[in-house]
Amino acid sequence: MVKEQAEEIFIEASKEYKRLCEKNMNLVMARGVPSAEQLDLALGVLEALHARTEFSNSDGNDSRSYGVWNGIPEMREIFSDMMGVPSELIVLGNNSSLQLMFECISMGFTHGFGGNEPWCKQGNIKFLCPSPGYDRHFAITEYFGVEMITVPMTNDGPDMDMIEKLAESDEKIKGCWCVPKYSNPTGITYSDEVVKRFAKLKPAAKDFKIFWDNAYCVHTLRDTDIKLLNLYDECVKAGSENNVLFFASTSKISFPGAGVSAVGTGSVTHGELKKRFCTETIGSDKLNQLRHVLFLHDIEGVRALMQGHRKIIEPKFNLILDMLSESIGDLNIADWNNPPGGYFINLNVMNGTAKRVVELCKNAGVLLTDAGATYPYGNDPEDRNIRIAPTFPPIDELRQAAEVLCVAIKLAAAEKLLDKEAEKSA
Amino acid sequence: MVKEQAEEIFIEASKEYKRLCEKNMNLVMARGVPSAEQLDLALGVLEALHARTEFSNSDGNDSRSYGVWNGIPEMREIFSDMMGVPSELIVLGNNSSLQLMFECISMGFTHGFGGNEPWCKQGNIKFLCPSPGYDRHFAITEYFGVEMITVPMTNDGPDMDMIEKLAESDEKIKGCWCVPKYSNPTGITYSDEVVKRFAKLKPAAKDFKIFWDNAYCVHTLRDTDIKLLNLYDECVKAGSENNVLFFASTSKISFPGAGVSAVGTGSVTHGELKKRFCTETIGSDKLNQLRHVLFLHDIEGVRALMQGHRKIIEPKFNLILDMLSESIGDLNIADWNNPPGGYFINLNVMNGTAKRVVELCKNAGVLLTDAGATYPYGNDPEDRNIRIAPTFPPIDELRQAAEVLCVAIKLAAAEKLLDKEAEKSA
Repeated sequence: MVKEQAEEIFIEASKEYKRLCEKNMNLVMARGVPSAEQLDLALGVLEALHARTEFSNSDGNDSRSYGVWNGIPEMREIFSDMMGVPSELIVLGNNSSLQLMFECISMGFTHGFGGNEPWCKQGNIKFLCPSPGYDRHFAITEYFGVEMITVPMTNDGPDMDMIEKLAESDEKIKGCWCVPKYSNPTGITYSDEVVKRFAKLKPAAKDFKIFWDNAYCVHTLRDTDIKLLNLYDECVKAGSENNVLFFASTSKISFPGAGVSAVGTGSVTHGELKKRFCTETIGSDKLNQLRHVLFLHDIEGVRALMQGHRKIIEPKFNLILDMLSESIGDLNIADWNNPPGGYFINLNVMNGTAKRVVELCKNAGVLLTDAGATYPYGNDPEDRNIRIAPTFPPIDELRQAAEVLCVAIKLAAAEKLLDKEAEKSA
Repeated sequence: MVKEQAEEIFIEASKEYKRLCEKNMNLVMARGVPSAEQLDLALGVLEALHARTEFSNSDGNDSRSYGVWNGIPEMREIFSDMMGVPSELIVLGNNSSLQLMFECISMGFTHGFGGNEPWCKQGNIKFLCPSPGYDRHFAITEYFGVEMITVPMTNDGPDMDMIEKLAESDEKIKGCWCVPKYSNPTGITYSDEVVKRFAKLKPAAKDFKIFWDNAYCVHTLRDTDIKLLNLYDECVKAGSENNVLFFASTSKISFPGAGVSAVGTGSVTHGELKKRFCTETIGSDKLNQLRHVLFLHDIEGVRALMQGHRKIIEPKFNLILDMLSESIGDLNIADWNNPPGGYFINLNVMNGTAKRVVELCKNAGVLLTDAGATYPYGNDPEDRNIRIAPTFPPIDELRQAAEVLCVAIKLAAAEKLLDKEAEKSA
């Protein structure tokens, strides 16, 4: 886009933007939330215990009562297949894997890991934050006052040279956030080499933990499922399985607010978690676990259900991708990915315009994820990354929202370019 | 019981004990767990969402999805009536109020309350522990390395002279565990005066919290419900509502493993909890809240259900009480309460024999709560308190267990007395 083009685009886009604003839209494309249509796919979960008179799990425990601190074996089996971690090393939580992550960090602070000093007694501690990444991860470490170090993401995963260099030299670095498959928001899956390098990492800190949030482990959007190498297996070869906390949930399989979550790890760390969890509660909701087992049956049941999700959301992703291509594909002012799975399109607009794009959209009644949210402290150094979440709105609303988005990208770029040109000629 | 009597009882009880041991029983009277028959009362909870196509709560949120950090309004209303705290100051958790208590203590350690230093930076901190009390409370404070100070229980509640003297002079004392109604295990309800003195307490620590675990707020066993004065109201008069964390759950109303829990407090502390809970999770399980609302309807529905529980468990309490009276009522070697509500009979055997009684029962195949469990660090200074939990076993098993218990009490007392006599004559 050169100056003349920018002026032309500015005039056109301004006119178009004004027209769209007059529609008084009120649309949300901000969070990775399944649509109501998707949630209907799992209504069988609610039927599962209907008129049932038998509530025992395979160990004979009444799932209505207290106990079974690590969750019913049948549900741990399903997670084992999803996460690639032996079921006896998995602990089931309630409806939120985020809560399990929070709890593990909280445990680091109050009790520490592996007999080391609690993090609250170790002064300023740090976490590695591959970015763009998941804002709620960063919110947890920020809440605990952990210094967050931004690590760039590549198409293969985080910059492993940087992760190795930092983690292996600085014992204040206690962890690394990872979404290894269909990553939030970039959609990439860590390469085999990246997984192996994580397994072979020799952190300076003895109480270092990789937070391996496999939130999208079965969330394929296309015909080909991208394979993620099993980190647990690689860790066992390297003797490092206690360095990793593996997380997953059914939040985007059954119900976001009423699913089952899980954490797995090596046997030493598992023992430490056991001590905490058994003090904290007499067990997670086993009836909800039983519901899920009766509805999902096994990993094949999970995969079949995910095909149902795909049928609903793939067209939504395609719509946004098509509209972006048609509207701004030739202008060289933005790039984006075509995600093979997960919940997001990762959009990079012209440097220095992301905040403005989000603002323009908001003023036109379309709510996007805050610009910068995908970076620690909400600080995108280039002000260019925007996370697009196309799953929630119905497709006609999505079309309107995408129209606003495309115009906003053009308008913000033209504004920026014209200012630049004005600066140059001044 | 004098020496001659003791010898006679020793011989008789030994014979009887031997006979009971030969039955090879395997009975559990250890924990406050509802029986399967009680759990059947709440099967309607599982039917509540059957074939339902509408999952909105009264605010229009889809209860299957993310969000509503503090829980659906309808369920908060029910807890408001149970707890006596305004519904807007209540936050719903998942299936465990114990987990909420743990989380509040964890928050004290990592972030502190009211802008004060986190407890982890305040050196050795202490909690007041009215005892006999609830072993899982004590286990939490022990896990966090909190120094626990035993405060004697009276029939009106904890020794308030001692609580005031300690809390008002020592700023290292950060909290006090309370089960104010049908207390675990003593069954007593705090008197109006005790409640008022808690409201008017002027703790030396600015970050002092009363953990008001109203676990048995609707768990009446007899015709007359003992009234507990509303601490929240008294605190509002005294301006101290932020000093209290109010807890309750439906664990012993619907399902121990799949109920709903709640915490309430003053608006300042509520704001601090909000910051933490909103970082930790995107909300608790709202479908389970909706299930409970549809089944319970309101506080009257709760009370009606509790009458059903009473019908099942009152005869179990009566059986134990009758057998204790008949078997050892005249021997002056033990005393116990007749609880008007709650889940326990509080039994005090002859000083120095509680461990022995529990051991004798265990060896005869009857599992009781560990002797000492009702005191901090499991240390009952008089070795006399035993918590009897009669709700779980079917009534015929309970009869057998009580038979063993009565014999064990007699045998342990006789052993003790004969040793004593032996010592004296030596």
